[in-house]
Parts: sequence; C-alpha cells; structure tokens
Amino acid sequence: MSSSWPGRYSDTGVFVCLEGGEGSGKSTQSRLLRDALVAQGYDVRLTFEPGDTVVGKEVRRIVLSPETGDLDDRTEALLYAADKAEHVATVVLPALARGEVVITDRYVDSALAYQGAGRDSLDLAELEQVARWATGDLRPHLTVVLDLEPEAGLGRFSERDRIEGESLQFHQRVRQAFLDLAAANPDHYLVLDARAPVDEIATAIRERVAPLLVQAERRSA
Amino acid sequence: MSSSWPGRYSDTGVFVCLEGGEGSGKSTQSRLLRDALVAQGYDVRLTFEPGDTVVGKEVRRIVLSPETGDLDDRTEALLYAADKAEHVATVVLPALARGEVVITDRYVDSALAYQGAGRDSLDLAELEQVARWATGDLRPHLTVVLDLEPEAGLGRFSERDRIEGESLQFHQRVRQAFLDLAAANPDHYLVLDARAPVDEIATAIRERVAPLLVQAERRSA
Repeated sequence: MSSSWPGRYSDTGVFVCLEGGEGSGKSTQSRLLRDALVAQGYDVRLTFEPGDTVVGKEVRRIVLSPETGDLDDRTEALLYAADKAEHVATVVLPALARGEVVITDRYVDSALAYQGAGRDSLDLAELEQVARWATGDLRPHLTVVLDLEPEAGLGRFSERDRIEGESLQFHQRVRQAFLDLAAANPDHYLVLDARAPVDEIATAIRERVAPLLVQAERRSA
Repeated sequence: MSSSWPGRYSDTGVFVCLEGGEGSGKSTQSRLLRDALVAQGYDVRLTFEPGDTVVGKEVRRIVLSPETGDLDDRTEALLYAADKAEHVATVVLPALARGEVVITDRYVDSALAYQGAGRDSLDLAELEQVARWATGDLRPHLTVVLDLEPEAGLGRFSERDRIEGESLQFHQRVRQAFLDLAAANPDHYLVLDARAPVDEIATAIRERVAPLLVQAERRSA
C-alpha cells in the first residue's frame, strides 16, 4: 500500500514504532524496550498516538468518547491526522534532533489500518496522502508489528471504546493492513507473533534495534 | 489557485458562501440574505465555519483559545479540515439534499486564505488537496467576497483572538487570496466592496442569488 512512497528517515536519533491490534502487547513491549535502552545509557522518549500532546489529548477525547456518536469518517481521519502533525512537530522531531531514541506506540500505519482498511469507506491512497502530509512523511527506522488474531486480542478487554466496538471483520482488515504494510517494506519492519512469551518478543525487538543504534552513532560521529 | 480543480456542485438546493476578512460584515449579510429568502418562502439553513457542529465547536475551542499556544501549522490546518468534513457531511449536504438554500459564513476559501496564504508556511497545493478532500470537493454555487482593507476591518474589534492577533501583512495576504480565488472562477464568485452601505450590499447579493434559485427550481421540477 505504501511501497510507492519513498518516505523520509531521520538523520539523527532512532525512530521505532510499535503497531498491532488491540491487546497485542504494544504498551508492554514499548516499556520493556525503553527500560532496556535506558539501562544501556541511551536517552529514550517513550510516546504514543493518539494523544501525547495537549492537542492530541483533546482529539483523543473527541474521537473516543461514546458521546461523540457517529463521526463522519473523514472527520475522524482528519482529527487523527491533526494529532499526528502535532505529535511529530512537537515531540518526535525535537527528540530525534537531540539524537534520542523515540519509541512510539502507534503511528501512521494505525491510521492506514484503522481509518483506511478497517472502515473501508475512504480511498486508501487519498487517506495515505493526508496522513503522510500530516507527518511530513517522516518514517520510523523500524516498525514492529505485534501480530495477533483479533479474536485473541479483543478477548483481553472487558470494556470497549468506540474502536474496539467495531466488528470482527473490521479488526481482521486492520490486521491484514499491518501485515501488508510490513510486506511492502521489509527492511523497515519486524513482524512478531504476539502470542509468543513476553521476554522472547522483547529479545527479538532488542536484537533488531541494536544495529540501528550503531548506525545512528556512526551518523553522529 | 484553485482553477485547475473542477470541483463538484450540488444538483439540489443552492449553496452560497460568504467570505472576507475580519469585520467585513459577513455575519450581517448572511442574516440579511437568510431573512430575505425566508420572506420569499424558501427553506434556508444559515451556518458557519468553524464550529457549527459538535466536533466543530471543539475544534474552534482548541484552535482559537489563547491557552493552546503556538499550534503547528499543519495541526491547525488539519483541525480546521476536520471541522469542514463534519460540517459538510452533517449540515451542508443533508440540507442541500432536502432542496434548501444553505448560506455558510466561511468555507474552504478561508482555509486557503488563512492557513495557506496568510501563514505562508505550507505548500498551497498540498493544503488545498487536504481541504478539498475534507469536503469531497463540494463547491458553493456562489461565493460572495466582502472585500475590505485589513486596516479597516481590524479596527472594528477591541478584543482579538489568535487569528486576529496576526500581523497586518498576514491579513493583506488573506485579502489577496480571496481576490485571487474569485478572479480564477468568476462564474461562481461575486466580489463586493465591504465599505458600501449595508442595504446596497444586501441588494447586490440578492440579485446575484436570484437566478440560482430559479435554476435550482428548474433542476428539481
């Protein structure tokens, strides 16, 4: 889906993204990676979308609140895009410019998977154009996809927000979208089975991140 | 700026937009037009951007609040685009589908003029693509530009919000953008001197709207 876009990779720092469906363990793995890198002496910025800015929190509140009712699909996509724009401009780019490791829980791929493939009502190329414009087409050096059957992930929740209340078919399209994005750009993706033991997944992520840290140090040397 | 876009005009109802700088009298003229058409027996929906939906009010609050601080320009443009998407989907299109006359105080041209020409930091063609995508490229049958020197319009306010606090050069670029949009598509624009007497402006607008009402009645007959 995104193979025709060259994208832009930061010359400073390391940008890692964790993607996956609900209950796939992104938050846990993000924290474990952060802790491991901090223990090695790296400056790490752990962040997330949507919501890790003042504007993002407002957007998240509007979109996820059951009181909002049925948002127009373009409205939803544009609100998430606004969150991304603010997140990249005020959190991600400044941290990368300082040479830090930025670990984000969700990024552009979630927009393409949820508002694009999941909803299945918007032209995917147009939606991608909006999301790429929002972020200045900044790409993660590595996106880790924690792959999980939707049935397994959704079962972990008792309460469900608007997104999690979508149909199983919705979540199956989301899963496939992540896998397609990874297949289109394997140099920058790592797909892992989210049902594997937590430590095993954490080790696989660290091993794939290690050479990126070395490359970043060489670039800054 | 928009001449290369064909746009899309509603087959039902009449869609009229009033544009212009701060203090140009858009709200007054919108109401006068509404009153005149209601007196003639038309169903009229008077509306505005940003803010005439639940989501729009939230967006307006975020963008215009002095507490928000410096928003990234793309964030601002995307928040306004989300407002437009919701406004078109839930207010403008339903009213036009019912054959009503929709009068909106500001629309896409304000995005191109303020976030585009005014800020002068974003690629205009890309910004236009986002704003057109938000609205499904729905165009007003007529856009009335109430043209005013920024010096005159800004003097009418004692309090100024974030937008009105911009430099005089900003507002001069905004004014020129409205005039350029009108010049590029004269069949769908009416430019009036906002310093003319209120009644004179109102009459000029009504005379230009009258044939649009006849055309709409012929289409629906």
